[in-house]
Amino acid sequence: MTDTPARPIARAPRGFADKRARDLAAERRILSAVSEVYERYGFEPFDTSAFEYADALGKFLPDADRPNEGVFALTDDDDQWMALRYDLTAPLARFAAQTWDTLPKPFRRYAYGPVWRDEKPGPGRYREFVQCDADTVGSARPEADAEVIAAAAEGLEAAGLPRGAYVLRINNRKLLNGLLATAGVADDRQKLAVLRAIDKLDRLGPEGVRLLLGEGRLDESGDFTKGAGLAPAAIDSVIAFTAVEAGRGDALDRLSNVVGGSEDGAAGVEELARIHQALTGMGLEADRALVDPSVVRGLEYYTGPVFEAELLLQTTDERGEAVRFGSVGGGGRYDDLVARFTGQAIPATGFSFGVSRLAAALRAAGRDAGAGARGPVVVIAFDEARMADYFAAAAELRAAGLPAEVYLGSSGMKAQMKYADRRLSPAAVILGEDELAAGAVTIKNLDLGRQLAGQVSDNREWREARPGQQTLPRAELVAAVRKIVEAAS
Amino acid sequence: MTDTPARPIARAPRGFADKRARDLAAERRILSAVSEVYERYGFEPFDTSAFEYADALGKFLPDADRPNEGVFALTDDDDQWMALRYDLTAPLARFAAQTWDTLPKPFRRYAYGPVWRDEKPGPGRYREFVQCDADTVGSARPEADAEVIAAAAEGLEAAGLPRGAYVLRINNRKLLNGLLATAGVADDRQKLAVLRAIDKLDRLGPEGVRLLLGEGRLDESGDFTKGAGLAPAAIDSVIAFTAVEAGRGDALDRLSNVVGGSEDGAAGVEELARIHQALTGMGLEADRALVDPSVVRGLEYYTGPVFEAELLLQTTDERGEAVRFGSVGGGGRYDDLVARFTGQAIPATGFSFGVSRLAAALRAAGRDAGAGARGPVVVIAFDEARMADYFAAAAELRAAGLPAEVYLGSSGMKAQMKYADRRLSPAAVILGEDELAAGAVTIKNLDLGRQLAGQVSDNREWREARPGQQTLPRAELVAAVRKIVEAAS
Repeated sequence: MTDTPARPIARAPRGFADKRARDLAAERRILSAVSEVYERYGFEPFDTSAFEYADALGKFLPDADRPNEGVFALTDDDDQWMALRYDLTAPLARFAAQTWDTLPKPFRRYAYGPVWRDEKPGPGRYREFVQCDADTVGSARPEADAEVIAAAAEGLEAAGLPRGAYVLRINNRKLLNGLLATAGVADDRQKLAVLRAIDKLDRLGPEGVRLLLGEGRLDESGDFTKGAGLAPAAIDSVIAFTAVEAGRGDALDRLSNVVGGSEDGAAGVEELARIHQALTGMGLEADRALVDPSVVRGLEYYTGPVFEAELLLQTTDERGEAVRFGSVGGGGRYDDLVARFTGQAIPATGFSFGVSRLAAALRAAGRDAGAGARGPVVVIAFDEARMADYFAAAAELRAAGLPAEVYLGSSGMKAQMKYADRRLSPAAVILGEDELAAGAVTIKNLDLGRQLAGQVSDNREWREARPGQQTLPRAELVAAVRKIVEAAS
Repeated sequence: MTDTPARPIARAPRGFADKRARDLAAERRILSAVSEVYERYGFEPFDTSAFEYADALGKFLPDADRPNEGVFALTDDDDQWMALRYDLTAPLARFAAQTWDTLPKPFRRYAYGPVWRDEKPGPGRYREFVQCDADTVGSARPEADAEVIAAAAEGLEAAGLPRGAYVLRINNRKLLNGLLATAGVADDRQKLAVLRAIDKLDRLGPEGVRLLLGEGRLDESGDFTKGAGLAPAAIDSVIAFTAVEAGRGDALDRLSNVVGGSEDGAAGVEELARIHQALTGMGLEADRALVDPSVVRGLEYYTGPVFEAELLLQTTDERGEAVRFGSVGGGGRYDDLVARFTGQAIPATGFSFGVSRLAAALRAAGRDAGAGARGPVVVIAFDEARMADYFAAAAELRAAGLPAEVYLGSSGMKAQMKYADRRLSPAAVILGEDELAAGAVTIKNLDLGRQLAGQVSDNREWREARPGQQTLPRAELVAAVRKIVEAAS
């Protein structure tokens, strides 16, 4: 007996998933459609690598004992900490700071690629996922926010979301800042607690939020959440603010009444007015983008306008219960990120979405971007000595643009048909002894077989009738297969 | 004075590069063209995530003190070592082992994505790069190798390499194994030394290789490389083997004479003969793929046929000296990788290329896949109050499929024109006070400007003539811009 070493177990690490053809087809269709839109808006492709120096990633993840808790980090051989990017914005800020003097300005880029988060994995919660972002760096104009919003809306539609199935909700951090300044709240932690409370409006309703804005709230399980500690008058004005009805030009007037008295509030309404005008110029009306003061979108990161893309469809969860799908992406203005490096304030704004989340939204909307993925035509292999004939047939089909392969396993006819069926092949090509001798080819329409499989009651009769199977002159192979493929699409 | 924390330095980690629009356009064009070919060959898209458990990656990188020296590794919170994939084959082997019972077999997949190597970075040597692979797992047939070779050849052509600019060279590990068995060489380390020696044939010529096959070789710098220690007769037969002229059917006869006497050698020639026949069936002749016994291609990894895609063009290096570009990709049969996990031998074969290396090969062949990348039409912004008019013009152009943006910076007309020029915009759209009042638009053809810039001697005259600038009714905007864009392409 030899001393064999232990074999490794074949499994992907926790929280990391393999992607099969259907999901990849959906992802690529989305990215290709959105890229085309973003390029039409003047955003150029720009990518960074997976790693950044940890100090360049910043502190937008929770601080903890380890450097960069929440990210995957390691030390390089020169003892510097490197970390895998957790989003596509931090690397863009680093690049902008590094190259600002020589870049054509404003710098408009889009990017897509994996990001990594070292978080506890769970069902549907992965530690690697693909994001897609569009950003404009170097423009303080609200019109830059408007263009990002318009590109996002058009991108979602190009990916397959029907108009009316989504809306972009727009808010501005400055409105609440103005409101709180008027109410005498200046403490950043208190402001953060206010944002957190508003963010729970959907779930807790105004009365629950009112408690969180004040002393705090005891939930059903008996846990107490400490509140923001606002005075009653301040609570009233925050609630009044979030209750302002969403809209476009009309909503601006309503907001102006609530927050226009403060300098920040007036500035915020003015920015939203300019976004509104630019969106109108581009033909985006309230059915696609509207101002909604209840949007919070992240916490410390944003400095001005924020936006959230929401799926409007009611969908059902695994238990068949109606659920709101909710956010499919979002963004906003982050004027402080580049200054971290250089001290020079460089305004920036962007929109980001998770590709698999959008794919799920499209499935919920009945527009699965991965549907219709087909396998190749399979040329059945009978005889070692005639392999060159099978390859010639496959090559002919490919040359005509029809995906095709010769079966390369070692199983018999029946298993080969099953293989073709599992690959979702439109057809199988049979070049048996008889066909080859007669200069003929037999083509089995597998689409038809799949259709009929559910309908025909007498299985034996069905098999003997060989539905969708035809023997033709060999020269008609390509034309006959093309007919089957085109009938299916 | 406030106590400001130190600012991080804005730079990418050593050995990692940012990618700008031109390189990304080239990369995407290559991957899209090759993906289309691979799907036509029946390979389905399949991806794994960046991480694998370190033990699953195997020992195909040099062993060292740290687990997985040469890869980026870290411990997960359950103390298991995870590592970033260093190629796309090891994760495929893990997936195949994990899911073999339920996969349609053979499993044909293609993949592309970044891989990472923790190696010393240098000029042109990066620690992250994009690979693109096609593999068939579960077929021992030489025809599976042939199909991978044919798909590779067609993929290279679809990416832009002209026929005649490349060739796929095919060898078989079994030939040399047979030869060495006949010569009485059974030691694996000695075999490896022989492979290493043959791999230097290009650089050292037959006499240099002869020394490395025997006692060893002293190079010009005085360094001595220990040889494989073969006996003189064995050295003669190895040299005779590598000197067999490359070709197709004819080369098989010549090889049979040299190695056909051994069992392994005869089996290897038989496999090559079947590859030859399948390639002929698919229409691939010796101008695209030929048998060449001097190909080594990697060391421990492969078990049978190996292949290498070589660029045939003479190119020049930075000093203008003629150089052979060499390999743009390669692959072969690796029948042992899946068995590492399960003990069950699962035959597999594949081809891999580096995308930026292929992009460089295309540039060397005068077929830069990134050439022709254009910027958007730039709508000049003059007046805050008329932004909506600029956005309406940009939206019209986009709706017609013409990339366009409104300038969103804060600079004047001259800087805006320079910006458009640096973005490689085909045209600038001017909607000044006069144009807006008259229902007109002025369009500046920037392509023409770039063309003329090199030709015109009297700069003032040229500027006054305003070449390529035309004022038209506003309704003719889209048609006029389209004409300029189409003239350029």
